[in-house]
Amino acid sequence: MLSSRIGILGGGQLGLMLLQAAIDWNLDIHILDPDAEAPCRKIAPKFTQGSLQDYDTVYEFGKDLDVITIEIEKVNVEALEALEKEGKLIYPQPSVIRKIQDKRIQKQFYLEKQLPTADFVLTENREDVRNFIDFLPAFHKLGRDGYDGRGVQRVSSEAEIDKAFDQPGLLEKAVPFEKELAVIVARNPSGEIKCFPTVEMVFHPELNLVEYLFAPAEISDEIDQKAQEIARKTAESFEIVGLLAVELFLTADGEVLINEVAPRPHNSGHHTIRANATSQYEQHWRAILDLPLGSTAAYAPSAMVNLLGEDGFEGPAVYEGMEKLLATEQVFPFLYWKAITKPFRKMGHITIMDNNIAALKEKVDFVKKSIRVISGDPHK
Amino acid sequence: MLSSRIGILGGGQLGLMLLQAAIDWNLDIHILDPDAEAPCRKIAPKFTQGSLQDYDTVYEFGKDLDVITIEIEKVNVEALEALEKEGKLIYPQPSVIRKIQDKRIQKQFYLEKQLPTADFVLTENREDVRNFIDFLPAFHKLGRDGYDGRGVQRVSSEAEIDKAFDQPGLLEKAVPFEKELAVIVARNPSGEIKCFPTVEMVFHPELNLVEYLFAPAEISDEIDQKAQEIARKTAESFEIVGLLAVELFLTADGEVLINEVAPRPHNSGHHTIRANATSQYEQHWRAILDLPLGSTAAYAPSAMVNLLGEDGFEGPAVYEGMEKLLATEQVFPFLYWKAITKPFRKMGHITIMDNNIAALKEKVDFVKKSIRVISGDPHK
Repeated sequence: MLSSRIGILGGGQLGLMLLQAAIDWNLDIHILDPDAEAPCRKIAPKFTQGSLQDYDTVYEFGKDLDVITIEIEKVNVEALEALEKEGKLIYPQPSVIRKIQDKRIQKQFYLEKQLPTADFVLTENREDVRNFIDFLPAFHKLGRDGYDGRGVQRVSSEAEIDKAFDQPGLLEKAVPFEKELAVIVARNPSGEIKCFPTVEMVFHPELNLVEYLFAPAEISDEIDQKAQEIARKTAESFEIVGLLAVELFLTADGEVLINEVAPRPHNSGHHTIRANATSQYEQHWRAILDLPLGSTAAYAPSAMVNLLGEDGFEGPAVYEGMEKLLATEQVFPFLYWKAITKPFRKMGHITIMDNNIAALKEKVDFVKKSIRVISGDPHK
Repeated sequence: MLSSRIGILGGGQLGLMLLQAAIDWNLDIHILDPDAEAPCRKIAPKFTQGSLQDYDTVYEFGKDLDVITIEIEKVNVEALEALEKEGKLIYPQPSVIRKIQDKRIQKQFYLEKQLPTADFVLTENREDVRNFIDFLPAFHKLGRDGYDGRGVQRVSSEAEIDKAFDQPGLLEKAVPFEKELAVIVARNPSGEIKCFPTVEMVFHPELNLVEYLFAPAEISDEIDQKAQEIARKTAESFEIVGLLAVELFLTADGEVLINEVAPRPHNSGHHTIRANATSQYEQHWRAILDLPLGSTAAYAPSAMVNLLGEDGFEGPAVYEGMEKLLATEQVFPFLYWKAITKPFRKMGHITIMDNNIAALKEKVDFVKKSIRVISGDPHK
């Protein structure tokens, strides 16, 4: 399996970290991405520029490969299904991608499999939302193409219904949650399953992006077990091969509900590169190549801070304060090979480790105020 | 400094691991190597095929770069000196490479700086060795171009003098050592120095290649301190910028002597990728880019096994037993992107970690008997 010709649909930062992990095993990786300046461009042994959503492009890319995986869900599933029929290994399976691509199908799947999730109703368009006024406050979510905080809109009351999307979506009851958690699960074709330790995500109040993350989550053993159990059961229900990132709500009364899932490496697992025996990226390779899964044990408590482009700056990226970070023990910046910064663009992340939780949190504060991605002349 | 254009002379496995570490910081790396099939070839953002020993090739490669480093000492130092005069940063400095390239100069440098090393005499040719019969048993070492066990010959008695090299070399008294140790030191232009924990090397009895390695070395605190102190003092004496791998003999009576040094990442530091907070590769970048040096703390005791091509096999490499290794907790194979195996060729290494030393050693035995690099059809 290690000598397979492997394709990744998508050459963004997740692809880049998959590539970095693949170096250890001399994996033969081919990348498809529409952007000539994609993060993977310079590092990928083979890079094809092309649309991920065009049937012919995806089919042509895959037809001489053995194993195909994704780092983004928004891909042409029909082409992957055709390749699967020809005997290619497509992991995650097209059937899984199809279910997850559409949040409406995803949510119905949870109901069907008796997996806990917030109450919801399907809506066909903006007008339709008016039929569920007693369901508010709620989040209106686009069925398809939502990503990274896009495609989700809070609708608190009738007066806000004009904020709802005018496309097929779903209205999900706003759950008064205490915490947002995430568990990344890996499953290989032999059915072996391993979960990474539960993490706690802290969201940016306005941008709906993970601002930082703690691992392990500060929760009781009981809640932790519940979260791990749900994540495992979700991966089993999908029968996924590869990684499944399961985002969860912990409610005030100790309920754990699935928010949504992603069938690939995830923002909530970047810290595993530094902090865990096996990273989520290596684990993904193990899973899809039908190898034994690696230990997910953590070496120390850790945190992860997303490094976003500073508001008000657009142009060649300059990383202000990197040296300060590198002068702090066990602070590990990772940059995403994006030449151009834009306001709130994900430009990198920083993993922070410390055996002492209080010291860890102090380091997080220090990191957040020490580094900025602005535009300027990188060579100055 | 992170936006410097950086060149590496050499694109072998050390270059590959430097490249892998450079991904985190989006470093702009250019590789020069004579071999179109060099390990770095497919991963390097920029790869130039050309001789490392030809003045013009090295000069042309370096003239549009800002920082140049090496992963092998056998390079054209005159070209590096010319580039240095033009204001390029060459780390390690050409003056250091020059001293280390020639073992005769290296050994005299230790004497001059009062650094402990085994007694030696310089010899001009094979005949000359006859003048030092009372110095035997000794090791005859080639002054230049020795590498990976080549260029060293044991001469036990007068009858064996025909084994000596017929070129300028040195005769080093065979030290009855108990252990071979190594300490990798990093030093940046600001003069900051950090040592990795002392490791213990176990050599293959016939091949004079590191067969496996334990970290930390099983030695008393006193010996450990002595080894660390010598390594630090050696780096300071050379005033090196970058990594210096210091190989040491521990004699039966507790003396610690310098065997030889390498001004670059080293075989005795591969395990730091997995086992230490900062790897030797990341530390090299920190050092030569004048960044603060990282923590060298280890997460757990570790071992490293070199993966050599099996005797009797030459051809496309097949890694027998990889799956068995990957099924064992905290066993991490790293392959060197060499398509062709040859007897005893370095094809990869395996890092093994365990908090329990006895279990660690058992895993080493298991690893050594579980994996073989043979030739065959990799796609079968």
